[in-house]
Amino acid sequence: MDERLKKQLEFILEIDKEKSIYRQTHISGYTRNENDAEHAWHMAVMAYLLKEYSNEEIDISRVMIMCLIHDVVEIDAGDTYAYDTEGLKTQKAREDAAKERIYSILPDDQKSELQKIFDEFEENKSPEARFAHSMDNLQPLLLNNSNNGEDWRKHGVTSAQIYKRQTKTKDGSHKLYELTDELIQENIKKGNIIN
Amino acid sequence: MDERLKKQLEFILEIDKEKSIYRQTHISGYTRNENDAEHAWHMAVMAYLLKEYSNEEIDISRVMIMCLIHDVVEIDAGDTYAYDTEGLKTQKAREDAAKERIYSILPDDQKSELQKIFDEFEENKSPEARFAHSMDNLQPLLLNNSNNGEDWRKHGVTSAQIYKRQTKTKDGSHKLYELTDELIQENIKKGNIIN
Repeated sequence: MDERLKKQLEFILEIDKEKSIYRQTHISGYTRNENDAEHAWHMAVMAYLLKEYSNEEIDISRVMIMCLIHDVVEIDAGDTYAYDTEGLKTQKAREDAAKERIYSILPDDQKSELQKIFDEFEENKSPEARFAHSMDNLQPLLLNNSNNGEDWRKHGVTSAQIYKRQTKTKDGSHKLYELTDELIQENIKKGNIIN
Repeated sequence: MDERLKKQLEFILEIDKEKSIYRQTHISGYTRNENDAEHAWHMAVMAYLLKEYSNEEIDISRVMIMCLIHDVVEIDAGDTYAYDTEGLKTQKAREDAAKERIYSILPDDQKSELQKIFDEFEENKSPEARFAHSMDNLQPLLLNNSNNGEDWRKHGVTSAQIYKRQTKTKDGSHKLYELTDELIQENIKKGNIIN
């Protein structure tokens, strides 16, 4: 087997570990926590189905691969919960080291290509990155809402915390931000989110 | 919330159930069975990374969405193991009914669009479908190989069965079929696959 294919296969096997990185969010029905691979899959399908709501024109292929690989770094860095203030302080350093190690498994051209896509997501300055962030925010919100806010209640999440995070949703899609706002307000009324 | 968005969100929540449809294949490390959402995610990333090996020119965006949604029908129809001869007899009827129910949750235009993509995959007549099938075959093969053929041994799988299934891999990619052949031969030698 040639060296290039060997490296690609090694990377493909390495990212299998994403299936064992569990998030705080639970799947619908609240039977168990969701893992990174499932979250990424769900985001990519959502991006395809909801692309008409992007504020700007987007290359959907780029959005999908961005969604699919944006959490690869968590294989080393672990999942940092959106409202874990301590974890958030060291998140960047942990994820930078992971980015270097994991993408280096690939052949150089693909290492560079995927790191660029990952950085684009992190910097959030392109239309594709903005829409991918809307998906990254909306996906767990939909699951939490379907689970009657159980995860929000468990972590004592406040409306200020959620609104701060969801600002990025607006940058990607005004329409989906309206939906987000509606769902947050409903969950505040139900007592699932602290006002 | 308008009717269109409501339908899209309902579908998005419906397909969350794929995270609870378990396949015969185990994730690498053999800690547990893999589910459909994880399998689809893995296939879509693989398609992106290995697209240079497609026999024909492909629209990678179409291949990715095809990979991401090809198992949605298993929410109702369940997973049919590739070497389950009894289950395979009723698979088509079960999946057709599922296809109608599940995609009908979407707005009409998206129902029609996604069913078309699903049918294209099933009929396997386009370059995109052929490459997606290569991924559908190669992904569990790589996991099985990484798990020292545990799943093959457990089910007493023969080389004739594997080669029959893997014919489709060749239609999508000669290069990846060479790899497949190499891995099958290694696993026959190790006694993981019955010759």
